[in-house]
Amino acid sequence: MSRPTTNVCLIGHKFMGRTHSNAYLKVNKFFPELGLVPRMHTIVGRNEAELKHFAEEWGWAKTSTDWRKAIGDPEVAVVDIGTPNNMHREMAIAALEAGKHVACEKPLAQNLAEAKQMLEAARKARGCKTFVWYNYRRVPAVALAHQLARAGKIGRVYHIRAYYLQDWAGPSVPLIWRFSKEVSGSGAHGDLGAHVIDMARFITGDEFVEVSGAISETFVKEREIPSQGSGGGIASGAASAKGTMGKVTVDDATLFLARMKSGAIASVESTRFATGYQNRNGLEIHGDKGAIRFDFEDMNRLHFYDATAERKVQGWTQIMVTHGGDHPYAANWWPDAHVLGYEHSFINQVADMMSVLSGQPPVVPLPDFEDAYKTQLVLEAATMSAEQRRPVPIAELE
Amino acid sequence: MSRPTTNVCLIGHKFMGRTHSNAYLKVNKFFPELGLVPRMHTIVGRNEAELKHFAEEWGWAKTSTDWRKAIGDPEVAVVDIGTPNNMHREMAIAALEAGKHVACEKPLAQNLAEAKQMLEAARKARGCKTFVWYNYRRVPAVALAHQLARAGKIGRVYHIRAYYLQDWAGPSVPLIWRFSKEVSGSGAHGDLGAHVIDMARFITGDEFVEVSGAISETFVKEREIPSQGSGGGIASGAASAKGTMGKVTVDDATLFLARMKSGAIASVESTRFATGYQNRNGLEIHGDKGAIRFDFEDMNRLHFYDATAERKVQGWTQIMVTHGGDHPYAANWWPDAHVLGYEHSFINQVADMMSVLSGQPPVVPLPDFEDAYKTQLVLEAATMSAEQRRPVPIAELE
Amino acid sequence: MSRPTTNVCLIGHKFMGRTHSNAYLKVNKFFPELGLVPRMHTIVGRNEAELKHFAEEWGWAKTSTDWRKAIGDPEVAVVDIGTPNNMHREMAIAALEAGKHVACEKPLAQNLAEAKQMLEAARKARGCKTFVWYNYRRVPAVALAHQLARAGKIGRVYHIRAYYLQDWAGPSVPLIWRFSKEVSGSGAHGDLGAHVIDMARFITGDEFVEVSGAISETFVKEREIPSQGSGGGIASGAASAKGTMGKVTVDDATLFLARMKSGAIASVESTRFATGYQNRNGLEIHGDKGAIRFDFEDMNRLHFYDATAERKVQGWTQIMVTHGGDHPYAANWWPDAHVLGYEHSFINQVADMMSVLSGQPPVVPLPDFEDAYKTQLVLEAATMSAEQRRPVPIAELE
Amino acid sequence: MSRPTTNVCLIGHKFMGRTHSNAYLKVNKFFPELGLVPRMHTIVGRNEAELKHFAEEWGWAKTSTDWRKAIGDPEVAVVDIGTPNNMHREMAIAALEAGKHVACEKPLAQNLAEAKQMLEAARKARGCKTFVWYNYRRVPAVALAHQLARAGKIGRVYHIRAYYLQDWAGPSVPLIWRFSKEVSGSGAHGDLGAHVIDMARFITGDEFVEVSGAISETFVKEREIPSQGSGGGIASGAASAKGTMGKVTVDDATLFLARMKSGAIASVESTRFATGYQNRNGLEIHGDKGAIRFDFEDMNRLHFYDATAERKVQGWTQIMVTHGGDHPYAANWWPDAHVLGYEHSFINQVADMMSVLSGQPPVVPLPDFEDAYKTQLVLEAATMSAEQRRPVPIAELE
Repeated sequence: MSRPTTNVCLIGHKFMGRTHSNAYLKVNKFFPELGLVPRMHTIVGRNEAELKHFAEEWGWAKTSTDWRKAIGDPEVAVVDIGTPNNMHREMAIAALEAGKHVACEKPLAQNLAEAKQMLEAARKARGCKTFVWYNYRRVPAVALAHQLARAGKIGRVYHIRAYYLQDWAGPSVPLIWRFSKEVSGSGAHGDLGAHVIDMARFITGDEFVEVSGAISETFVKEREIPSQGSGGGIASGAASAKGTMGKVTVDDATLFLARMKSGAIASVESTRFATGYQNRNGLEIHGDKGAIRFDFEDMNRLHFYDATAERKVQGWTQIMVTHGGDHPYAANWWPDAHVLGYEHSFINQVADMMSVLSGQPPVVPLPDFEDAYKTQLVLEAATMSAEQRRPVPIAELE
Repeated sequence: MSRPTTNVCLIGHKFMGRTHSNAYLKVNKFFPELGLVPRMHTIVGRNEAELKHFAEEWGWAKTSTDWRKAIGDPEVAVVDIGTPNNMHREMAIAALEAGKHVACEKPLAQNLAEAKQMLEAARKARGCKTFVWYNYRRVPAVALAHQLARAGKIGRVYHIRAYYLQDWAGPSVPLIWRFSKEVSGSGAHGDLGAHVIDMARFITGDEFVEVSGAISETFVKEREIPSQGSGGGIASGAASAKGTMGKVTVDDATLFLARMKSGAIASVESTRFATGYQNRNGLEIHGDKGAIRFDFEDMNRLHFYDATAERKVQGWTQIMVTHGGDHPYAANWWPDAHVLGYEHSFINQVADMMSVLSGQPPVVPLPDFEDAYKTQLVLEAATMSAEQRRPVPIAELE
Repeated sequence: MSRPTTNVCLIGHKFMGRTHSNAYLKVNKFFPELGLVPRMHTIVGRNEAELKHFAEEWGWAKTSTDWRKAIGDPEVAVVDIGTPNNMHREMAIAALEAGKHVACEKPLAQNLAEAKQMLEAARKARGCKTFVWYNYRRVPAVALAHQLARAGKIGRVYHIRAYYLQDWAGPSVPLIWRFSKEVSGSGAHGDLGAHVIDMARFITGDEFVEVSGAISETFVKEREIPSQGSGGGIASGAASAKGTMGKVTVDDATLFLARMKSGAIASVESTRFATGYQNRNGLEIHGDKGAIRFDFEDMNRLHFYDATAERKVQGWTQIMVTHGGDHPYAANWWPDAHVLGYEHSFINQVADMMSVLSGQPPVVPLPDFEDAYKTQLVLEAATMSAEQRRPVPIAELE
Repeated sequence: MSRPTTNVCLIGHKFMGRTHSNAYLKVNKFFPELGLVPRMHTIVGRNEAELKHFAEEWGWAKTSTDWRKAIGDPEVAVVDIGTPNNMHREMAIAALEAGKHVACEKPLAQNLAEAKQMLEAARKARGCKTFVWYNYRRVPAVALAHQLARAGKIGRVYHIRAYYLQDWAGPSVPLIWRFSKEVSGSGAHGDLGAHVIDMARFITGDEFVEVSGAISETFVKEREIPSQGSGGGIASGAASAKGTMGKVTVDDATLFLARMKSGAIASVESTRFATGYQNRNGLEIHGDKGAIRFDFEDMNRLHFYDATAERKVQGWTQIMVTHGGDHPYAANWWPDAHVLGYEHSFINQVADMMSVLSGQPPVVPLPDFEDAYKTQLVLEAATMSAEQRRPVPIAELE
């Protein structure tokens, strides 16, 4: 009666450590149809005491403070990288070389050069599957948007308007790792913009061909250095610390304009200074047959405008994406309109990763390193465009 | 090139005097297709100085402080009664007896007995048309709701949920005429409830057969008597006056439950104490084929749920009811989504009254005294139900 | 380092079995401050094979098909009753007599007589705590509404408008247990109305003193009898079955009007025929200082109107109730606006039950049998009012 | 008792001819406090028959098909230019040279060179006041946003996100004048973008210093040439015509990124291809003390986020901007929440123009040629940036 399992080694036990652990814990309970379920084998971190406690609470069988060793464990089949961006490259390549499947947090890497190395490693590691945690693809409303767009309900796309707006980074927030280029690679751009670039590509199936203009800004140039090693920023409440100041080396906000292969034009905005929006992550897409609109702060609804409907009743339809049988992932959860939250996107992703690893198709496509590399190209082009103050064709970077 | 005109005599120059004058002034400019346009012939009121000023500003040709005489003027064809409710009966009957068409403000009368006399007078005055200013029927979204329901888009109705919520009547508001039963007949019930009872009947085409239970409440039992003759309540800003207290003799809120001829069940709520809602006037109707939702505070949109649509894209569609050619009245106004306001419902009503008087059909049906009498039956039944604490079948009153 | 545990025996493994199991599974991971955590000791059900599978997936240590025996197990400290309503009384009394703490699904019982017996058993079982799963109290927005109201932000309450609207029960749905009075006690009224009666009482702290009028309706009087034992209705997708028809013995919709001890007036509506609303569960409360509005379909937001604010900026404020440190339960979950879903209300309830069992205060008050009995009084009064077509004072039932 | 009047000559009797005529007709009725009211003296157009009819309907005393002569009439004090953009320069300069006050439709001119000439003429004509019809400033919600921002409620601005989205220009729309650069100067950019650039400047009081990047796109490059002289595009329903194709010479959409003097960054988007939005004209502004959000499709509400409020109740407050005494223009209109529409912004503008002409301050600042020239600078910089594919500092153009 028990289902086959696959052993997962998760590196990182902070914000993403929790979201991933929760996903591994719950997936088998809600996805009875899976042919493979994850086993929580090893959790990796630096602070042994914290790690033990985390493992006990969440049910990880083993702990390790040596990620290389943990990765090398022959029992481990899947390596899940939930660390800050500066560790993605090294860990992913090591895991791939060890013959493991890899699920890596987003953005793929700190910059394009690193991403390229990771992509090459993935291409070489033929038996290994790669996944990237662009979890918002698996918010049911976003998955439905993808399905509608692919079914032709949007038609030829004219406009993509993508944004990821937060407001937690006022001047009193100290210099946590998210403000350090060495650890993060970038600020709002890679942290937030990466998600909506991915979402735009995922829903439309279209690709960016040029960043036509960009602005990058750091509103708060210096911040207080936290007294101790610091915490996880948005996830760990980041208290202000009295003391010496340090320089912020990433963007607080990045906006760019772009052209798509199809002829559509796009705008993308990411910021940590959008007072009033704590996690407004969404997009609007307008085509000649219809339009869609999504905002994560109201994540259970997709807004769809059917421009082919009788004009008398045309309008924005607010679809509650919770109907089992008709809406992606809905049958696995609660009754209609017994709504889902943030964490469910991760659980849905684990379910789809398990499907792929057991030879089944995912509900909607999962991003692998090939796919995530394309998002990284756009990130890089936008960064270059902002710095060099000129349009940057994607082809220039490939 | 000029169109035929009909002479209107308007009684009242306060809140409703303004809304009606504005309608007569504008209708010919926006409804070029009308075969008959109103001429602003006589304005009637009690304060001669104010009246002269009003006539001059608005373009009324004559003024009169003697309504009987004004009604008797052979040049006048239409008598428009925009006074408080205690004058409706006397004026309407006099006008009908003088062979005039009558447009009467709502509710038809202070109570059912008066309404019955008016109805009888209307039946006798064979050549005279009667109209009642249930203006919200002519908000384009409400007219569209009527059209959709009549086209079968709602199907068999299960539920009607109607409400009219305001919040202006806190304890500091003085004892204006709206709190006096002698002048108004009732409080929130006749002032607000009448509108949504009419709207429910208009949209569904269904009739109330029983008020099954009711609550009527006066939260503030005594109010200060205004120093002078008083003003128009909601429309005239009603400042508090220091002085002796007087008794409130009307309801601040009335709620009732009812059964419809079709088997549907209904709830109706009217109140002046719904803190936060200044003019929330709307309803929700659920049927086996669809549902509609309207709220005047967002008056340019109708929400429609098509339960016969593909389940994957079912949801509440927010229809911006401004599309010329497809939506009622839209072609007469501004381009799409150049939205309308409160006053347009009155102008649309004048246009439809002119259509009827010139032998053309209105865009959507106008309420006459027969029709408004049915709304008065429901008002009366609800009042009785609240007082006698028992269900009151409508048939008992007919 | 491990925290003290308490052994839970859960009866029922369908819809509520899943929500409760999920809550027990997750609570220790997200509430590190708890002094006591649940241990998933025994799961009870009738179908042994299904039960074994459920236990394995969810991590229940033992299974039992004999609820009396399971309750009697000296290792069990808490008995959780997640069965249909017809079993609540017998199970709860047995558990209390066995000296167990009891957490019972809502409504407390099928009717007032049963509820009274349960209340008496609870009063006798002095060392035993009782809880009722009015889980919506622990939706953070509802908990915040309670806090705001208790802090005087609403002031004197004028109006309560509560509703629970679903639309799953069209004519094609077969005769599942939810349509049987013998199993459920009532239909929409007890299933849905109970929640919003509880919510209204919880937020305002006020009590119902009279049901002034009520309507109860069964729109679909006969339904097809399912071929087999049937499923769980809303939770189990209820496919239509060809065959003989059976009589529906519960209400499809119940509406009632009521008066509160404070002088406020209330309306309560519950229905399974509100086309377009799959789980619209909410209320609006208007007071002299402010107003609140909540709708579960947008569960992460509370709408608050501060009538004491500067008039220029008064309006409905949409509070995203996700800010750690400021909003109830928020610090235990994800970063700001990384929104929660339906299931979190159950996890929050388990956390608060654990707090109470370990001598700590809950975040907001938990309903015990005393409290839930008061909700049962209102349910009964409304049922009587609908049947006897008269106002029913609560005092008549006590 | 009559108020002093000033004679107005209006050039144009199509879409803007109607909005302006309606404003002149109504202003004295709703603004009794004005010391000066307009007299509808002369209407100017090309088609004499249409013109006569228009004059008769609206009450213009005279008609003229010779705009130069009409302008020269010594009785005329105010010249109102409601023509397509290609006539603004010539007419405005002539009127100023004739010593008239000028109210010119927006954008000021087809391009910066023309605008500069107009500005110089205005500077020379010392006794003449100039006004530009950026009417959305006088939507009460926008005026309130201005007041809040100027009162420091937004604080230091980080982000401005402005957009004007329409969807009427699909491939079937023929080649009307709005698609011709010779008549319009530009497409969506000048028609729509001009409004929101003005709005952003007006609310913040900040100025653009650089257009950092821009995209301009013409999705439909050729359109059918209408059989006759053509109509007014969005206002006149533009039917498709079979026949030869002509080239579209303006943008269908223009997007740009910009930097403000204060250090804020801005994005501006204008398009006629935003399927689903018929007239979505709005902006969002985020500062360190608060944020505001406005969308014309819901024009009676301003959304305000007070980041200085108690965190527990922080959120987006939806202010219904209709409260007499507290909200701009509200006291002149209907009771609270008896909402306004599109046309009221024009009436409010006439009221403020009359105030200025009679030596009184306007409710909120009116744009004159100096002010509108600054908006024209931004339009030009964005056009250059899109064409030359580089950042364009505003200083380069001054």
